Amino acid sequence: MIDLLQELSEAVHIALKGRKMEDLSSQIAMGADGTPTQEIDKIAENAILECLEKHGNPLNVLSEEAGIIDNGAENTLVIDPVDGTFNALVGIPFYSVSLAVGKQSLSDVQFGLIRDLVHGAVYIAEKGKGAYMDGQRLKTKDYDPGKTVFLVYLGESASPMSFEIASKARRTRNYGAASLELAMVASGVADLYMVDAEPMIRLVDLAAGVLLLREAGGEIYNTDGDVLDMKFGPRERSNFIAVGDKKVLEGIV
Amino acid sequence: MIDLLQELSEAVHIALKGRKMEDLSSQIAMGADGTPTQEIDKIAENAILECLEKHGNPLNVLSEEAGIIDNGAENTLVIDPVDGTFNALVGIPFYSVSLAVGKQSLSDVQFGLIRDLVHGAVYIAEKGKGAYMDGQRLKTKDYDPGKTVFLVYLGESASPMSFEIASKARRTRNYGAASLELAMVASGVADLYMVDAEPMIRLVDLAAGVLLLREAGGEIYNTDGDVLDMKFGPRERSNFIAVGDKKVLEGIV
Repeated sequence: MIDLLQELSEAVHIALKGRKMEDLSSQIAMGADGTPTQEIDKIAENAILECLEKHGNPLNVLSEEAGIIDNGAENTLVIDPVDGTFNALVGIPFYSVSLAVGKQSLSDVQFGLIRDLVHGAVYIAEKGKGAYMDGQRLKTKDYDPGKTVFLVYLGESASPMSFEIASKARRTRNYGAASLELAMVASGVADLYMVDAEPMIRLVDLAAGVLLLREAGGEIYNTDGDVLDMKFGPRERSNFIAVGDKKVLEGIV
Repeated sequence: MIDLLQELSEAVHIALKGRKMEDLSSQIAMGADGTPTQEIDKIAENAILECLEKHGNPLNVLSEEAGIIDNGAENTLVIDPVDGTFNALVGIPFYSVSLAVGKQSLSDVQFGLIRDLVHGAVYIAEKGKGAYMDGQRLKTKDYDPGKTVFLVYLGESASPMSFEIASKARRTRNYGAASLELAMVASGVADLYMVDAEPMIRLVDLAAGVLLLREAGGEIYNTDGDVLDMKFGPRERSNFIAVGDKKVLEGIV
């Protein structure tokens, strides 16, 4: 299954390679989740769907653009064809494709793959078998109060708690691509990544990254403090706090 | 002069290429500005100094590591060998070398060059002759209240005003490399970049970026609202707000 995900992510890479991003910023439709679809998202999604069809459509598909495609399969492929669309369009080098395979919710995701579309790094995870970047096993960072790096979504739609938590780290950053930011926590670069804003973040942005994080030793919670789970659905959204080491939570109370 | 700066930045690129960043994180000395020097900074600085020596040391040097080197020249090269050292060491693909040439203060800087050491983009500026990225003329972004992107330094040492301003943009980001973030404002990707923290930002981080920003149509202010100037010196620091379009300031009052 990881091989198939690799191939799907490669298809996106090839479809976008050499394209002038400025030409891909026209809004072409309203996505299944209610946010406008950019041409770049559509091109990437089509590359995935075509590649999947070549393999006989072995998976159902859940996508931010197309919604649910029922191929009569047992498992569902949850895709964010381009995570960090804004970055891609304006030339900020942080965007990715995110692919996850599961049955009906975050908690049963079996496989996840995130590909950094600028630098080529590939993050993969298989439930119970660990998380890897380019073959190297990932392990989250132990909490060290003097050296914290928090990734916090900010801006006009962020909650007061977001600003509160952003003020508690040695370094606070925001890169604007959720799957890559979860990968930064999974790989021990950052201690925490949170989004607490309106609108909340979409299931398709999180599905692969959550498995990656958990397989690397981290955990993700909703803003009530419960372990995060989300049903598969095109309009599913949630806020969250993801940490590499649970002790980070004690440090921000 | 721009050719010389190109060559110096190329020397840094070559010196760091293929190095394992994890091996370069030992703190080896206390820099002239009072912050610890990492091996990566020292390697990059040496590459610049050696290349400059080959040219007969036509410039004095002001560096965060070495302090002031008086070569009896009329002009001074202000260098930040690696801007975004933390990013480089932990594998975040966002760091640069920043080079500027002037006499005694920010306001008389004649030439600036910033090279993105990950992606290779080169930003250059010559006073009165414009700012360019890879040969393309740069122009800051016009203010559009619905589409603002602010770059704001946050974390435990940031001022309350930083959080206040971070809450007013459609998108708030922080990438952790001052010269590249000034280049993002100069090139119209972002509307504003500010650092208001303790310790403040160093002259060497700003010297090239400020000329780039001004030549692209933007301006930079200290936190009293005056146009920013800073005398050349190894311990010079300041807080600042840089904008592409002055109307951005009206939007955040």
